[in-house]
Amino acid sequence: MRAMTDDGSGMTGGRSRILEAVVDVIADEGIDRASVRAVAQRAGVSIGAVQHHFRTKAQMLEGAMAQLTALFEAQARDDAAAGAEAPDSPGGSARQDGPGDPLLVLRTMCIGLALVDEESRRLGGVWLDFVATSRVNEGLAGIHRSAWARLRGLFAYLISEIEPGHTGPESAADLLLASLDGIAVSRMTEPQYMTAERAQGLVEAALVAVRAVEGGRSSGAQS
Amino acid sequence: MRAMTDDGSGMTGGRSRILEAVVDVIADEGIDRASVRAVAQRAGVSIGAVQHHFRTKAQMLEGAMAQLTALFEAQARDDAAAGAEAPDSPGGSARQDGPGDPLLVLRTMCIGLALVDEESRRLGGVWLDFVATSRVNEGLAGIHRSAWARLRGLFAYLISEIEPGHTGPESAADLLLASLDGIAVSRMTEPQYMTAERAQGLVEAALVAVRAVEGGRSSGAQS
Repeated sequence: MRAMTDDGSGMTGGRSRILEAVVDVIADEGIDRASVRAVAQRAGVSIGAVQHHFRTKAQMLEGAMAQLTALFEAQARDDAAAGAEAPDSPGGSARQDGPGDPLLVLRTMCIGLALVDEESRRLGGVWLDFVATSRVNEGLAGIHRSAWARLRGLFAYLISEIEPGHTGPESAADLLLASLDGIAVSRMTEPQYMTAERAQGLVEAALVAVRAVEGGRSSGAQS
Repeated sequence: MRAMTDDGSGMTGGRSRILEAVVDVIADEGIDRASVRAVAQRAGVSIGAVQHHFRTKAQMLEGAMAQLTALFEAQARDDAAAGAEAPDSPGGSARQDGPGDPLLVLRTMCIGLALVDEESRRLGGVWLDFVATSRVNEGLAGIHRSAWARLRGLFAYLISEIEPGHTGPESAADLLLASLDGIAVSRMTEPQYMTAERAQGLVEAALVAVRAVEGGRSSGAQS
């Protein structure tokens, strides 16, 4: 995953250096330790410089979560583009009426969201801290809610492309996203058990399971 | 869910009052604010009284997470017993060779773990903070890992009871638990979207999807 300082503007100045330091401190020590003081020290700037960009710790965290979310979404767009460009899709039976194979796009995004690779695992830990803190910080909660709403919409669209007769693409998207969230939490908190290989196997199983989800409220385990 | 002071000993003395205060502070303000000072104030005891039971903040958090885990596991046993006692199971086709209907036991546990009801939602927020913090606190990580290992074993057992011919009960248990984790995170962080009704519908969908999970590494979305 690209460095957070690469904001497309070519600038690696004060604000983005500070946001990168926020992420580094959270990744290494937890959000509990991400004080303005610790961030200033990590970024090699004065406390006043941090406060110039972010008046409060809450604003600093919001800035970092917004940037991390933008980064994940940019990564998802790259994943989707990579899926679209893949010359030989393993999902041979899926429809091929879009710019890319929607199953391959969905799978690539799922592997990213489940934090199968190591670098995304590091940033996922930061994301988990932000999500936990969003319980008590409305600014972070808003960022989380909008990002998840966009993802759900995209997943439901891809599922209806893959399975045009699917009776509940929205529920299937909800369940798939929940599964990825759970796999990601496990990747972050018990990596000895949830290895990259096991996580990838579960992503494949979750993609298969998408087909079993029906529309509306399910009638239970007797399908 | 029962109050945390009910530890079965009939005592509601210093240590358990302090642990209850830890949980209350985290539930209302986040783990960031759970200082020894704030906990002492919440419990109505001196800072020295907290330090008598827990030498450090880390030990205090470990104590609270261990107690919360024990509480969830006691709840799960109650849920299992309630499932076992239910006179009329909706899972009519499941085998009935144990003390209870394993599908009903599994479903009841799933609804508890997905935080469908409000009180479990509150304690789930505390659990999420513990899990996020376990990334940087080995004591919390150990509690989390053992609890999840026990749950996975129990889930795999129940799935193999429900579906004796299932080719991958362990993978199915992993995916089911991941789904519940993700639903729970959504219940805690975006309750307006992930209502109790939607969460319950997704639990049912996850139980159906269990059947689609195959053993070992899946060959992909082409089942």
